[in-house]
Amino acid sequence: MELYGYWRSSASFRVRLGLAFKQCDYTYHPVHLVKDGGEQHSEAYRKLNPSELVPTLIDGDVKLNQSLAIIEYLDECYPENPLLPVDRVAKAQVRALAYDLACELQPVTNLRVLQYLTGTLNCSDEQKVGWIHHWVSKSFNAFEQRLADYAGDYCFGNSVTLADICLLPQVYNAQRFNVPLEDYPNLQRVHSNLLKLDAVQQALPENQPDAQ
Amino acid sequence: MELYGYWRSSASFRVRLGLAFKQCDYTYHPVHLVKDGGEQHSEAYRKLNPSELVPTLIDGDVKLNQSLAIIEYLDECYPENPLLPVDRVAKAQVRALAYDLACELQPVTNLRVLQYLTGTLNCSDEQKVGWIHHWVSKSFNAFEQRLADYAGDYCFGNSVTLADICLLPQVYNAQRFNVPLEDYPNLQRVHSNLLKLDAVQQALPENQPDAQ
Repeated sequence: MELYGYWRSSASFRVRLGLAFKQCDYTYHPVHLVKDGGEQHSEAYRKLNPSELVPTLIDGDVKLNQSLAIIEYLDECYPENPLLPVDRVAKAQVRALAYDLACELQPVTNLRVLQYLTGTLNCSDEQKVGWIHHWVSKSFNAFEQRLADYAGDYCFGNSVTLADICLLPQVYNAQRFNVPLEDYPNLQRVHSNLLKLDAVQQALPENQPDAQ
Repeated sequence: MELYGYWRSSASFRVRLGLAFKQCDYTYHPVHLVKDGGEQHSEAYRKLNPSELVPTLIDGDVKLNQSLAIIEYLDECYPENPLLPVDRVAKAQVRALAYDLACELQPVTNLRVLQYLTGTLNCSDEQKVGWIHHWVSKSFNAFEQRLADYAGDYCFGNSVTLADICLLPQVYNAQRFNVPLEDYPNLQRVHSNLLKLDAVQQALPENQPDAQ
């Protein structure tokens, strides 16, 4: 398999986590999201992924985008250590936790949105950071309440799931922008449990070859 | 089943589509997203859904949020007329199409983001509309290219899938804000095919009891 991604991209981080939990080997192709206006906008990359977003996964003659679609695909291809429960209610609850972060928080704080805020809308750096803090806090407040119902060692009971894969990049980003986390004890506990796992260490942004 | 939603909410529209395609009866509880500062922020609703977002689906003693998690749950509970292909590559491709819209476009243009732009960031109405046009165009440009590869009568071949369920609310919103659609012939064809379906007519925003 081949992964086109960027060390700091949340969605790339998610797919690296999926690949690491599934113990899949892959070749990594860094796509620098900032250099020269962003390599994701190059003609070569647009042929791979017309959305001009990372990641893209190549598996033989299969070409896939969208991190969550890729991880569900990996989970079907490699059923050992499942990332979703078998029970359909539990599965829906895990997916909902994942989407609470991946659909409601990440897209609103990703690079291209921040670029539009500071570029087209002329927002100050303070306004940009305020935007990030606002959406992270809103999202983590709700997530903390859900964790009180669902969490064990990890977001949903005591096995790693898709929800944990979505949590890690959002905590990474929150810390990067100094969002205070002390109001989220469940979230912090789960996060520190996750950091103990080899698969997580392998997938961390700072441990990628293109990390700066 | 009971659905808490709002006629104009994209995510509520998706779940209504899922319920209509699965021919499920349900009781509808409107949650007015604007009146009195937004009923989704009330204490009663926050107990149902701490994210303060619609929709929420109640199925017996199961309480679910996140439209895509709900629709995958319905698709498992009612396997007739599946909304996802059986083949795992095709399934990943349909999910990716769905997430291209539901994760990349909808969250960036939803009500609470627009309220933050015009409220906290003091954006003008023109800047707000510019924001919507920018993200819709970016997203539909890429989606049109994907439809050229995948579409038949509908987004993915000739059966209705999760991708179509995500497309309908985004076209509704694009039209509401007068985003020109003439550059997207595949998207327009699929959309007009979808509008011919009874299930789609049932689920349209303007056909809900709380429509204004």
